Amino acid sequence: MHAAAFIQDLAVIMLVAGMVTIVFHRFKQPVVLGYILAGLIIGPHTPPFPFIHDQDTINTLAELGIVFLMFSLGLEFSLRKLRAVGATAIVAALTEIVLMIWLGYEIGRYFSWNTMDSLFLGAMLAISSTTIIVKALEELDMKRERFAQLIFGILIVEDILAIGIIALLSSLAVNGSISTLDAAATLGKLTLFMVVSLVFGILLVPHLLQYVASFKRDEMLLITVLGLCFGFCLLVIKLEYSVALGAFMIGAIMAESRQIKLIERLIKPVRDMFSAIFFVTIGLLLDPNTIIQYAQPVMVVTLVVILGKIISCSLGTLAAGNDGRTSLRVGMGMAQIGEFSFIIAALGLTLGVTSHFLYPIAVAASVITTLLTPYLIKAADPLSASITRHVPARMAAFFDLYARWLQSSPPESDSALLASIYRKTLLQIFVNLCLVSAFFIAGSHLLGLHWIKPPAWMNSVDWEKALLWGSALLLSSPFLIAVFRKTQAMSLLLADHSTQGIPWNEGEKLRKLISQAVPVLMLLVIALLIGWLGHGIQPSWQVLMMVLLITGALVALLWRWFVRLHYHMQISLMETLSQEKDEH
Amino acid sequence: MHAAAFIQDLAVIMLVAGMVTIVFHRFKQPVVLGYILAGLIIGPHTPPFPFIHDQDTINTLAELGIVFLMFSLGLEFSLRKLRAVGATAIVAALTEIVLMIWLGYEIGRYFSWNTMDSLFLGAMLAISSTTIIVKALEELDMKRERFAQLIFGILIVEDILAIGIIALLSSLAVNGSISTLDAAATLGKLTLFMVVSLVFGILLVPHLLQYVASFKRDEMLLITVLGLCFGFCLLVIKLEYSVALGAFMIGAIMAESRQIKLIERLIKPVRDMFSAIFFVTIGLLLDPNTIIQYAQPVMVVTLVVILGKIISCSLGTLAAGNDGRTSLRVGMGMAQIGEFSFIIAALGLTLGVTSHFLYPIAVAASVITTLLTPYLIKAADPLSASITRHVPARMAAFFDLYARWLQSSPPESDSALLASIYRKTLLQIFVNLCLVSAFFIAGSHLLGLHWIKPPAWMNSVDWEKALLWGSALLLSSPFLIAVFRKTQAMSLLLADHSTQGIPWNEGEKLRKLISQAVPVLMLLVIALLIGWLGHGIQPSWQVLMMVLLITGALVALLWRWFVRLHYHMQISLMETLSQEKDEH
Repeated sequence: MHAAAFIQDLAVIMLVAGMVTIVFHRFKQPVVLGYILAGLIIGPHTPPFPFIHDQDTINTLAELGIVFLMFSLGLEFSLRKLRAVGATAIVAALTEIVLMIWLGYEIGRYFSWNTMDSLFLGAMLAISSTTIIVKALEELDMKRERFAQLIFGILIVEDILAIGIIALLSSLAVNGSISTLDAAATLGKLTLFMVVSLVFGILLVPHLLQYVASFKRDEMLLITVLGLCFGFCLLVIKLEYSVALGAFMIGAIMAESRQIKLIERLIKPVRDMFSAIFFVTIGLLLDPNTIIQYAQPVMVVTLVVILGKIISCSLGTLAAGNDGRTSLRVGMGMAQIGEFSFIIAALGLTLGVTSHFLYPIAVAASVITTLLTPYLIKAADPLSASITRHVPARMAAFFDLYARWLQSSPPESDSALLASIYRKTLLQIFVNLCLVSAFFIAGSHLLGLHWIKPPAWMNSVDWEKALLWGSALLLSSPFLIAVFRKTQAMSLLLADHSTQGIPWNEGEKLRKLISQAVPVLMLLVIALLIGWLGHGIQPSWQVLMMVLLITGALVALLWRWFVRLHYHMQISLMETLSQEKDEH
Repeated sequence: MHAAAFIQDLAVIMLVAGMVTIVFHRFKQPVVLGYILAGLIIGPHTPPFPFIHDQDTINTLAELGIVFLMFSLGLEFSLRKLRAVGATAIVAALTEIVLMIWLGYEIGRYFSWNTMDSLFLGAMLAISSTTIIVKALEELDMKRERFAQLIFGILIVEDILAIGIIALLSSLAVNGSISTLDAAATLGKLTLFMVVSLVFGILLVPHLLQYVASFKRDEMLLITVLGLCFGFCLLVIKLEYSVALGAFMIGAIMAESRQIKLIERLIKPVRDMFSAIFFVTIGLLLDPNTIIQYAQPVMVVTLVVILGKIISCSLGTLAAGNDGRTSLRVGMGMAQIGEFSFIIAALGLTLGVTSHFLYPIAVAASVITTLLTPYLIKAADPLSASITRHVPARMAAFFDLYARWLQSSPPESDSALLASIYRKTLLQIFVNLCLVSAFFIAGSHLLGLHWIKPPAWMNSVDWEKALLWGSALLLSSPFLIAVFRKTQAMSLLLADHSTQGIPWNEGEKLRKLISQAVPVLMLLVIALLIGWLGHGIQPSWQVLMMVLLITGALVALLWRWFVRLHYHMQISLMETLSQEKDEH
């Protein structure tokens, strides 16, 4: 009776979780802690006996919990929001993450743990808990205040950086060590993957969802959303990234669809069910003996998390030009670790590179810091008042001046406008080159499938390479054309701009040089890029020439159609990004 | 990477299900058929290869699909609705089920299948598909018409009877054969279980949900609902009933809570997800070769389902006093089989008593009849017009007279009022006796646990029996007192009523006899009931006397408190049943 055992497990999990969370909610403690305690109660390490029969199936469901947690986080993410938060979020998040990883690593070294344990500890301490913070701010009724908006911004940036951390740690764990070059390659590939999937995702997914939603059947929309979510996770697993990354990315893509509110409403119960199972399994894994045994590291970690995060986030926020009170409130709101630490701890265990004690230490530190979060937020105001009283007047004046200097908006000069145009064009060129790279990398991965039989007079390997290389080039052409045209336009602007002040006649030559050299330079960059990325599928020289001739002829024929196609794609992308979302 | 395989399976299921259902919806075919086809496509019996890696885990999730399907059906069920539909639903449902089981059994015998296969086939054909009918009526925009209301009533009654069928089939499958006495005992126990769990469920669950909902956190309410649902299913499994019964019952209990709309909204996405998996696994199990091999039985079954259901439901509805057109529309709406047939087919496979070909036959017949449902409903009106033209005028006149005779409401006489009072009181006595029986049966099941050490001067078995028997009696007392008081009141009424017309003096003696004899008779019934059900835990005579003395003294002491307690419970139950539900 496998099914009966499974239903029994679910019954125990849900009943105990339900009861404990009601008690926790009654005493105004976070529900998440209730789940973990429920797991501890029914777990194998506490009397009277383990209540869970089929730990494997429950662990599999907990994996779904991670998927849905990250997916929801992605749904709440939005490119527009990220732009609005601006500099503060990026500065504060970077300060916090760098400092915390370093502190965590040093703690590990201090307790003479091995390098991998120390690094994973650092990563675990780096990211604050969105769930806990949102919940605490909701209960204190502070969600609308300015410091809360800053905190949400920092959390969004953290989520993105966390994706990078997960990718780096995975690659590190698999390869044992990582050079700066490898790290750069990993992050480069990650960026490429994120850009490409965002572009194609936002081009395709919102339209698909719009179509399915037009049937007005919640069930079909839900199944489609789940299919896309799991399907994308599967793709990401095949590319050897973590499933957490995939779930977050597809969530962020769906966040740009009109039906986002409805999707959030439909996915919430499913997420609540599986994330409850996820948090309960964290408790299941928890052995109180380990925590007692490692009481000293737990205390050190907890203290470092609280102090380190308060200091780094406050300073980061202050440096980005906010006042002292706001900065301190941001810092004290961020002083805890949560679900992300568990995900990273689980990653270490799954990959088999971390020791068994890391998980319980992270959970214990998370429990203590989570419990303290509301009190820390409430303590921020008195503390800031007391600091203000003790800070020398000159220092206060300096910070005030600094903030005002940063916040003063730059004059709306021509050069500022020009800079904004350059920035935008360069971003567009970058995105287009990412897409081109993706086609050639994908082509390289398809080598060896032998889909189409070669003609008799041709070498089979050469034939396949020619096909793949030619297709990649043909698919890339709309984007290459766009890159070239944008470079041309930019070089004209650059030529005009850089010869300002020089008499017209004298500047003529320089203008011509710039406006012609820059596009040629770009062609060289493109050729090198294709040569490098398409190296694996480049056929022999004679064949290459032939392929180039054929593709060239095709591109020349389809040039205007390619230009129009790219234009429509760009417009469609912009429209999707700026469209209003339906209320539900 | 177990989790990766699992996510791959889910991705394949959801993606294919999503695509096929979109196509099906586009061509206005039921989504459920899309799921089954999706399962067939990715299943092991169709080329190119099986897409599902971990069939076991998927089957476990499909089991959850049954739980959530039946739970939702229970949520839509309501004791009040059942009362409103009245006689038509009961007559039509009984006619249909009896005829279809008999027809199914005869088909099996005709194809010389064994008894168990034939019986399960009968059961599979008995119940029409709520999902399909609701969907078809929604799409034809006929949900508000009178015949649709009648259909929903019949479906509710069918759901209850189906529970009985499942219980009987399970017990039949386990024991190999079943005598009339066994069948009566099975149904008796089932009724007892349903009454007791409805009473205690409706007393406790809506209040608990009200309390949890007062926190205004959807997540906590969902977890509590899931905990109660799985917990009750677990209890039901331990009592060796099917999980489908448990899910339906706890759903029906929750249907009486104020938060029913919110609960339905929260549970719907979870149900949609798991029921999609359930329907896809039906397709997974489907082997097209089997269907081709058994094409003849499939066609016979399909034909019998359509004709049998049209005739039985139409006649049943007609016999309950509806006009010919309505009756025919009801009959043609009910002419299909669906999810219940799959559940019963799965039951047969799980218990290992049916042959492998039964499942695909049921699925094939369900697919064909489901596809025909909308056309049949639409054909009802022309058909009824054509029948009217060909029916002899005298026969039509007779049916018209019959319907009018049935629908004419009985005069509001004293005796009708009296009859209603008797009926109500007898129902209350029945429910109370059910509760008493439950305490003694539960006591018998607890024998042998040795919770409390016996005193030195007492036999250990006798001590335990005394404790259990005494506790059962004490717990039963409020209900026994209520039964006794209600019997007294009824006997006075009966005495008055039955001596009407006899002169006061002459009737005096008879009145006294009746008003005293009936309660004594009831005491005798109670003593026999307790003697019978408590037989297993009845201690030796000396100990029994002692226990009776002690319990008697306690009951005498607590008499008034017991009366008040019972009164409050009764009021609370009535209030819950009649309360308005919150809109959401």
